[in-house]
Amino acid sequence: MSDVTVQSVTVLGAGSWGTTFAKVLADAGRDVTMWARRPEVAAEIRDEHTNCGYLPGVRLPDRLTATSDAAEALAGADAVVLAVPSQSLRTNLKSWRDLLPPGAILVSLAKGVELGTLKRMSEVISEIADVPAGEVVVVSGPNLAREIAQGQPAAAVLACADHDRAVAVQRASFNSYFRPYTNTDVVGCELGGACKNVIALSCGMAAGLGFGANTMATLITRGLAETARLGAKLGADPLTFAGLAGVGDLVATCSSPLSRNRTFGERIGRGETVEQAQAAVGGQVAEGVTSCRSIRELARTAGVDMPITDAMYRVCHEGTDPATAGAELLGREQKHEWS
Amino acid sequence: MSDVTVQSVTVLGAGSWGTTFAKVLADAGRDVTMWARRPEVAAEIRDEHTNCGYLPGVRLPDRLTATSDAAEALAGADAVVLAVPSQSLRTNLKSWRDLLPPGAILVSLAKGVELGTLKRMSEVISEIADVPAGEVVVVSGPNLAREIAQGQPAAAVLACADHDRAVAVQRASFNSYFRPYTNTDVVGCELGGACKNVIALSCGMAAGLGFGANTMATLITRGLAETARLGAKLGADPLTFAGLAGVGDLVATCSSPLSRNRTFGERIGRGETVEQAQAAVGGQVAEGVTSCRSIRELARTAGVDMPITDAMYRVCHEGTDPATAGAELLGREQKHEWS
Repeated sequence: MSDVTVQSVTVLGAGSWGTTFAKVLADAGRDVTMWARRPEVAAEIRDEHTNCGYLPGVRLPDRLTATSDAAEALAGADAVVLAVPSQSLRTNLKSWRDLLPPGAILVSLAKGVELGTLKRMSEVISEIADVPAGEVVVVSGPNLAREIAQGQPAAAVLACADHDRAVAVQRASFNSYFRPYTNTDVVGCELGGACKNVIALSCGMAAGLGFGANTMATLITRGLAETARLGAKLGADPLTFAGLAGVGDLVATCSSPLSRNRTFGERIGRGETVEQAQAAVGGQVAEGVTSCRSIRELARTAGVDMPITDAMYRVCHEGTDPATAGAELLGREQKHEWS
Repeated sequence: MSDVTVQSVTVLGAGSWGTTFAKVLADAGRDVTMWARRPEVAAEIRDEHTNCGYLPGVRLPDRLTATSDAAEALAGADAVVLAVPSQSLRTNLKSWRDLLPPGAILVSLAKGVELGTLKRMSEVISEIADVPAGEVVVVSGPNLAREIAQGQPAAAVLACADHDRAVAVQRASFNSYFRPYTNTDVVGCELGGACKNVIALSCGMAAGLGFGANTMATLITRGLAETARLGAKLGADPLTFAGLAGVGDLVATCSSPLSRNRTFGERIGRGETVEQAQAAVGGQVAEGVTSCRSIRELARTAGVDMPITDAMYRVCHEGTDPATAGAELLGREQKHEWS
């Protein structure tokens, strides 16, 4: 595998992160074809070199093309990037699996834990595409799409149990503003990405309640600690949570005013109900609201205590008042930092 | 030691963090006496219950008193909190050492590495007060003084090789808004506190250059990684850097608009020289500007690569352009996240 050259890449999904990652690959010299569900979006990317709905003001590279025909998009790809929302990945992938070129490296941009099955995204991909889970490459890190699309410098993690596959994607995506590091801890990288939305939600709530940087930093730190406890139980390396896919991703999300989870949490902290917040942001619920349910279930199954996730679940799904949930978090017994 | 009760506490130093920690102790039910260098500040704290120069708008508890007479302040103390700047701790402590009540627990709020000796603050205290270094308790964590003084919830770390001493201070400081955790890794907690000023400086520079949350999160993450490399070489537990005294302290400092290091870095990023930035903020240089020198020396002695600290040294002390230093950081060779 270490000599594999990835030249032709297909990106399935034309949201902001999919489009941005396609741009990264094209700017790194790859031939990139995007698939967009809506033909008009595919046409806009192909003919106008823009995707105004998701990345207003960004000019996409000429060597990036697009189609709404999945078979056409996938023909001859050396690597296939899955850039659809986590809860719809299974359904989408089922419709694509017979079109995947044999031997193509599968790359996941999706972050989440599937409701019901409690599977991570690489596990879903492995199951549906019928490839070993250890061959799927997972992308994570402090990657706010808009900033990368503007050419701001960013680091990322490419996680794969098969180091050579991660290196192949690393070579394919490295460019003047995108700096990917490899990592073999797929479990840790995926859990970091899934749990950060819940913690970002809690940071937003704290801000909505009027708290400042200490409280946010404390929630980030203790949130990482509970994520690391879950990870350790599920076979992750605790060090991963101190890295780009842990603290990096979490800090970027929690400090950005663009984060949907943070904004959603802020509204709830200011006294809105989940339904009111949902209506105010155009009907879509923040991912952390969904994820706190699946992650809480995963933690219960694994026998791990995750007090922040639990508090978010109680606030979002059982109607507990955010201030009460916060006071309960603070009132836990005095102890050693890592016990 | 585990039955030691700390009731009478002296806080030496009346800056914003010293005053805030004195308030925390008083609000936890302790009898607290502060020492202030300037008699008028001592009088203000004692008679007006305020310290307007450092904590405007904050009302201090009635059971907190103050004096500018060190002997009077120290008489009968069960614990002595050292709250003076790191580079002047040695000189100050020399003048106090004969006044320290025998057996009093020494607590350090100072963060830094001493220029010249390259010693951490607990090492300086141990040397001058002639106590075992393992008996000094170090306070660290996401502790922006103003927020804690306003009663916002915050967590902190109390590090001491002697767990019982840390527990005694934990019992003495725990109150409705301050949640202290114990930790035995003094080296890690002190290095985390010292290095964070340098990383905050780099985050400020990135912001001044126009970069957003991804870049800041990346600098925080890679900054923690280089701090952890130094720590591992000097006997710290790498996990400490994933905790409150590592990522917690760093995130609070880097996200607060009140941080002097961040603000200073921002000015340099926007094109000011160190001298111009210094003049603009009232003549005081940010701690990170001094610390990058001593930490770089410590890293060289230990044979550890610290690229961000190095870049900050080159910008602050060798006149390298921030944009050039940033591009050099980004251009380093592609590799595994932890190599």
